[in-house]
Amino acid sequence: MPAAPDETTARLGAGGDEVRYDVVGMGNALVDVIAHASDGFLDDQGLVKGSMTLIETERAVELYGALDGAVEMSGGSAANTVCGIASFGGVAAYVGKVDSDDLGRVFGHDMRAVGVAFRGGRDRQDLPTGRCVIVVTPDAERTMNTYLGVSSTLSVDDVDDDVVASSAVLYMEGYLFDRDEAKAAFRHAADVSHRHGRTVSLTLSDSFCVERHRDDFRALVAESVDLLFGNEDELRALYSTDSFDEAVDRLRSECSLAVVTRGPQGCVIVTADETVPVEAVPVDEVIDTTGAGDLFAAGFLHGFTTGRDLVTCARLGSVAAAEVIGHVGPRPLVELHTLAGHV
Amino acid sequence: MPAAPDETTARLGAGGDEVRYDVVGMGNALVDVIAHASDGFLDDQGLVKGSMTLIETERAVELYGALDGAVEMSGGSAANTVCGIASFGGVAAYVGKVDSDDLGRVFGHDMRAVGVAFRGGRDRQDLPTGRCVIVVTPDAERTMNTYLGVSSTLSVDDVDDDVVASSAVLYMEGYLFDRDEAKAAFRHAADVSHRHGRTVSLTLSDSFCVERHRDDFRALVAESVDLLFGNEDELRALYSTDSFDEAVDRLRSECSLAVVTRGPQGCVIVTADETVPVEAVPVDEVIDTTGAGDLFAAGFLHGFTTGRDLVTCARLGSVAAAEVIGHVGPRPLVELHTLAGHV
Repeated sequence: MPAAPDETTARLGAGGDEVRYDVVGMGNALVDVIAHASDGFLDDQGLVKGSMTLIETERAVELYGALDGAVEMSGGSAANTVCGIASFGGVAAYVGKVDSDDLGRVFGHDMRAVGVAFRGGRDRQDLPTGRCVIVVTPDAERTMNTYLGVSSTLSVDDVDDDVVASSAVLYMEGYLFDRDEAKAAFRHAADVSHRHGRTVSLTLSDSFCVERHRDDFRALVAESVDLLFGNEDELRALYSTDSFDEAVDRLRSECSLAVVTRGPQGCVIVTADETVPVEAVPVDEVIDTTGAGDLFAAGFLHGFTTGRDLVTCARLGSVAAAEVIGHVGPRPLVELHTLAGHV
Repeated sequence: MPAAPDETTARLGAGGDEVRYDVVGMGNALVDVIAHASDGFLDDQGLVKGSMTLIETERAVELYGALDGAVEMSGGSAANTVCGIASFGGVAAYVGKVDSDDLGRVFGHDMRAVGVAFRGGRDRQDLPTGRCVIVVTPDAERTMNTYLGVSSTLSVDDVDDDVVASSAVLYMEGYLFDRDEAKAAFRHAADVSHRHGRTVSLTLSDSFCVERHRDDFRALVAESVDLLFGNEDELRALYSTDSFDEAVDRLRSECSLAVVTRGPQGCVIVTADETVPVEAVPVDEVIDTTGAGDLFAAGFLHGFTTGRDLVTCARLGSVAAAEVIGHVGPRPLVELHTLAGHV
C-alpha cells in the first residue's frame, strides 16, 4: 500500500520523518457479542440504554446466559475506526491486546484481513481476549457491557514508539481511561506523537466514562489533544453543563479542532473561530447503531489525512456512519472508498 | 415447555413411552465463519461453488487467512434445524460434540439460548471445536469448507439413548457419514429410535458426500429411514442417474416419505402413491443461502410433529427457508412461530 500523500505531512506539520501510516489507533481490543433483546430485558438486567458498562467475569457469564443466540464479530472502538480508514483506502495501524485464544485469533485475522498493521503488544497468558456483550433493542440503540480481559493490560511497554512516530495521526479511545496502566500508555503515546510533529486525536467514547474521569479528560484535552471527537452528551459531561452552547465555547478555548456528532442532526465542527454545522447523510432504516461514532471518526480522519477540507472530512464521516448503522455489526460491509466518490 | 401434543405420538405410532422431545438432531457441531468473496476467489482457491469440502487444520488456516473480515456464528446443519424447530415453538434436543474452547462455549450458549436441550457428548481435550468456513459469493450462494475438529469424534458412547428414545423424530445429517465412528453412532441412534416406535429421518446434506458414500446411503435409506430430506442434486447422486423422475421412482419404492427441495421451484413430497409439488414462498432478495435446507427441514418437521398435513408441513418448511436466506447466517433472526400463522 502507498505511504500517505505529501499533503498529509505538509498539513500535519511533521518534521523530516517518513509517514508510514495515516492513522494509528490505540484502544481496547474486543470481540463483540451481539444479541437482540427487548427494552424489558434492559430493565430486568438493570442496564442503561446506550451506555457502556464494565463488567467482570461472573457478570459476563450471567448476562451472556440470559441472552438469546448471539453473533460474534470483531469490535473495539478505535479498532473499528482503523478498519474503516483501511476500507476507505487509508493506511492504518492498531495497538491493542488480545490473548492467543479463539477470539484473539478472530480479532487479529479481521485486522490483517483489511490490511491494518496490528500490534498485539507483549504476550500474556493469564487473561482471555476481551469481549463486549452488545444488546441491540428494537429502536436500533446498542447497550454495551464490556469484559475487558487482557485488553485492559495495555501498558507503556506495549506501545511501539516507531509506529506512533511514523503515523500522521494518533487516535485513541476514551475507554482506555478506565484503567491507570492504559492511561499511562495513552500519555506516553501522545508524547511520542507530538515529539514527531504529529496530530494527537481522542474520542470521548462514553459520557459515563467521561464522568468517571472528568478531571483527567479535561487536562488531556487542554494539554495534549489536537483533534477531539465526541457526541453532545459526552461534551456536556466533559464540561459539567446542560448547555450545549456553553460546552462548545469551553471546547473552543481549549482544543484547536473538535467534531461533535449529533446523531441524525449531523455534526458541528468546532474551531477557534467558527462552529460549522454539517448535515448527516440520510439513512433508510437504522438497524444497529453500534459503531456509528467509530465509523464517523474513520471517515473524518481519512479526509483529514488526505488533505480534504473539514466539511468534506465531516461528510466522509457521515457516509461511513450511515453505512454501518444500516446493518448489524460495527464494521463496514462494503468497501467505503466506493461510497466516497459521492462526497 | 410443554411435551409434544398427543397427535404426535398417535401419528408416529409410538408405544407407551412418553414423548419428551419433538425432534432430536444429531450432527457435526460447528461454528460458522462467514465471509464474503468474489467468484474469482473461489477459482483462485480451487473451490467448487455450493459444495462442502472437508479440510484439515493447515488448509483451514490458509483459507481463513486469505479471506476478508468474517463473522462467527453457530452453525452445523442439524443444529440449525433443531434451532429452527425451537423457534417455531417445538421442543428439541441436540447431540453433537464441541470442545470447552471459546467457539464451543458460543455453540452451547446459542443452543441453550433458544431452548434446545444440548448434549455435548463425552469430554475430550485434544481437538478444538469444529468450524465451517463459509464463502458467500455475490449471487448469495455459499461454499463451505469444514474443519471438523472434535465434532467428528461423535461416537456411539456420545448418544444419549434416553433422549433418542423419548424423541418423536430422530433427525440426522448426511455429513456424519464422512467418518466411520459417526456412522456407527448414527446406526445405533436409528436402532434406538425404531425400537421405541419413533420416526427416523435423514437429510442427504451434500451431493458430493452422497457420492463418496453412495452404497452406505442407499442401504440406510432402504433399511432405516422413514423420512428423507434432500435436494435434486443429492437425489440424483443417490441413485446415480441424471433423470429426476427416475430418481423419484426409485425413492418411492424404497422410502415411505421423502421431501425433495428444488430451490426457488419449491419442493415435491414423495409418498408411495403420489408426488405432490408445493410452491416456494417468494423471497424479495436472497442474501445468503446458508441454512436454506436446514430451515426447510425445521419447518417441515415442526409441522410433522404437530400433526399437520404434508402440504402444510412443506409450506412451513418454505416459510422458514425464506426467512433464513433473506439475511446472513444459518439460523432465523425472528421467532418463526410469528410467521407460521400465514400458512
